[in-house]
Amino acid sequence: MKSLKVGMLGCGTVGSQIARLLVANKADLTSRAGAQIELVKVAVRDAKVKRDGVPDNLITTDANSIVNDPNIDLIIEVIGGISPAKELILTALKNGKSVVTANKALLAKDGAELYEAANKANVDLYYEAAVAGAIPILRPLRESLVGDQVIRIMGIVNGTTNYILTKMDESGTAFADALKQAQDLGFAEADPTADVEGFDAADKAAILAGLAFHSRVTDKDVYREGISKITATDVKVAKAMEMVIKLLAITELTAAGEISVRVHPALISRNHPLASVRESYNAVFVEAKSAGQMMFYGRGAGGEPTASAVLGDLVAIARHKISGGIGPKESDYASLKIAPIGQTKTKYLIRLNVADKPGVLESVAHVFAAHSVSIQTVRQTGAGDKAELIVMTHSSTESALSATVKDLSNLPAVTDVASVLRVEGAM
Amino acid sequence: MKSLKVGMLGCGTVGSQIARLLVANKADLTSRAGAQIELVKVAVRDAKVKRDGVPDNLITTDANSIVNDPNIDLIIEVIGGISPAKELILTALKNGKSVVTANKALLAKDGAELYEAANKANVDLYYEAAVAGAIPILRPLRESLVGDQVIRIMGIVNGTTNYILTKMDESGTAFADALKQAQDLGFAEADPTADVEGFDAADKAAILAGLAFHSRVTDKDVYREGISKITATDVKVAKAMEMVIKLLAITELTAAGEISVRVHPALISRNHPLASVRESYNAVFVEAKSAGQMMFYGRGAGGEPTASAVLGDLVAIARHKISGGIGPKESDYASLKIAPIGQTKTKYLIRLNVADKPGVLESVAHVFAAHSVSIQTVRQTGAGDKAELIVMTHSSTESALSATVKDLSNLPAVTDVASVLRVEGAM
Repeated sequence: MKSLKVGMLGCGTVGSQIARLLVANKADLTSRAGAQIELVKVAVRDAKVKRDGVPDNLITTDANSIVNDPNIDLIIEVIGGISPAKELILTALKNGKSVVTANKALLAKDGAELYEAANKANVDLYYEAAVAGAIPILRPLRESLVGDQVIRIMGIVNGTTNYILTKMDESGTAFADALKQAQDLGFAEADPTADVEGFDAADKAAILAGLAFHSRVTDKDVYREGISKITATDVKVAKAMEMVIKLLAITELTAAGEISVRVHPALISRNHPLASVRESYNAVFVEAKSAGQMMFYGRGAGGEPTASAVLGDLVAIARHKISGGIGPKESDYASLKIAPIGQTKTKYLIRLNVADKPGVLESVAHVFAAHSVSIQTVRQTGAGDKAELIVMTHSSTESALSATVKDLSNLPAVTDVASVLRVEGAM
Repeated sequence: MKSLKVGMLGCGTVGSQIARLLVANKADLTSRAGAQIELVKVAVRDAKVKRDGVPDNLITTDANSIVNDPNIDLIIEVIGGISPAKELILTALKNGKSVVTANKALLAKDGAELYEAANKANVDLYYEAAVAGAIPILRPLRESLVGDQVIRIMGIVNGTTNYILTKMDESGTAFADALKQAQDLGFAEADPTADVEGFDAADKAAILAGLAFHSRVTDKDVYREGISKITATDVKVAKAMEMVIKLLAITELTAAGEISVRVHPALISRNHPLASVRESYNAVFVEAKSAGQMMFYGRGAGGEPTASAVLGDLVAIARHKISGGIGPKESDYASLKIAPIGQTKTKYLIRLNVADKPGVLESVAHVFAAHSVSIQTVRQTGAGDKAELIVMTHSSTESALSATVKDLSNLPAVTDVASVLRVEGAM
């Protein structure tokens, strides 16, 4: 039986699980790949760190010696970040080695360059683990739905923010308290910016958008808002209206045939399948022209779940190496443009603190009408000289809504615009 | 550009959608397959029936002329049933043609024979549409999770029964009324046996079990109970206990390393992801050793969703024809045995009508203890000389439970055993 030699770049949480599973599942993997898969070299920054299950003699600090080793067939990259991961992957591809990576940031930034390098060398570049961890979503999008047309994807693709929002929903805590709790439990980093401000989700949104619409989409194309401004009151109001707030990565085709791609918190109905995705779980909701609505749910992070996704890819490229053929390439034949966020249409929920006197609703309604933003429902609450107006709009462009909000905040009757949230996922 | 010629066997609801989509998505399909995919012949029983979108000159009543045509590269089988579908597929495979089929009954009965024929001819046999319609579940199981180990699968894989159970849950109607409603709306057949008695789900359970555990599993291996005995009271009691009744196709590894594979109604918690799968939607919940819990949700039937799944497979086998290689084969290296249903362990909810007098609970508890079935909770309700006992057991074997129920029904204090339902999906 032929043997395939694997070199791994990086050996942190994910890498050490990959090394362990390659040994633990050896018989299964061999049978399924049609070849022995052998880990022969592992590049790390600090060779002195003890790594359980990785024999010392595999360890090297010279990553270049792996990607340039003619005896190594396949490369796993789990270093993360842009450099030196990018240079190492490009060298490996140029040297005819297929690559599995979990590097979402790199793919979102420089995916096009990597895809082209893989095409040129006629080797595989697989990255299932880069989006929604263990959930098989990229392979279904790229292979199962290949005869269909994706219309829209809405994903909960960041476990940290979903954990925080779940806690806020369940216990009514403020954002800061929920974040603290997530940090104490290891669900959030000491510096939580990449998660709570939506940067991580934006990388994944770019990758999903590119795959779904056969176009090149980068992290810079993604409109992004985080969850740090979501208040306990926002969550409470959502709950009273049978909705829940989620940080969504959304990509869809606009009426003009452009790609809208964005990450922001949004209200969704409690009946929506995404509403029941709790804690640090991830889920990706896909609408396709023929297949209709689908959802893929599971663990979005963690060493072992991510390692499972990497091994799935590793077996696929090993099979290609043994039995011929190659996986579907990334396609950019559609070359669609990115729609400006101002043209994105969605529904909005706006909460206004207003003076409780006659004529307030009239003046508020006048502002909406002036910008052609159509109101679906208005609810007025409160007593004394203070009142709250909760306005749900019909579908409206972001630019019309922004102009409306600006004018509302200048109305004498409006004390302040307490919150503006998008409403997504009409079922 | 090379052209691939496709022959289709059958042209009903699914077949006519496939024919339509092959034309509507021609440019996309060509770009993704790397070849033109051309439908050149369609076998039907009655050539006089008018079929929109299928030119008359493609129609033939001679299916054998298609599978024996040396100019035809790929075959789509959407006739359904065992014969002549089986003979036609075997001939096509023997003639070196890769085949896509949606035929769950045939795969559940004679899958092994078809897989061997495909292996022998070194061609692809794909069947994503056979289980859970448009939901990509077989490809993720076979390819994405190839480096992982599946522990358990629980699926809602029959839309008709899920529709009926959803109506019973929502409106409290009896089974017969909900079935009538489903029939009136076209969600159930005039003869609903295959759906409501679980035969359709059992076929799918067999296919899932075989894939998950790398063993040969047929429809005859599947323990099967339908939903026709579920009463409005069962549904009401479930609701009061924050649970919902679903028809589940379950396959899992037992402690003895055997495959348990079964279809039956079961109570699951309303917090379980499967609980929110409503109407005629399908979902498959997978637990894998490394990846953890996953769920795949979507449309389980319908012409266009099923056609989408068939086209995904068609593009895959077209790509193999053009760029070399072949898909992963069905594997049976594990050759696991099927566990007898008597050894299957699960929790049970038992409702007993009892005389309301002292000592009843004691005598009932005695029967459970005598069979070593451990009780988790008991709830007693009712007034006057009638009372109801609702007993939830800890995990117990089916044989111990059956013996317990038999003895309970012979107890003088027990008027009757009103219902016995399994409880699945402890989270």
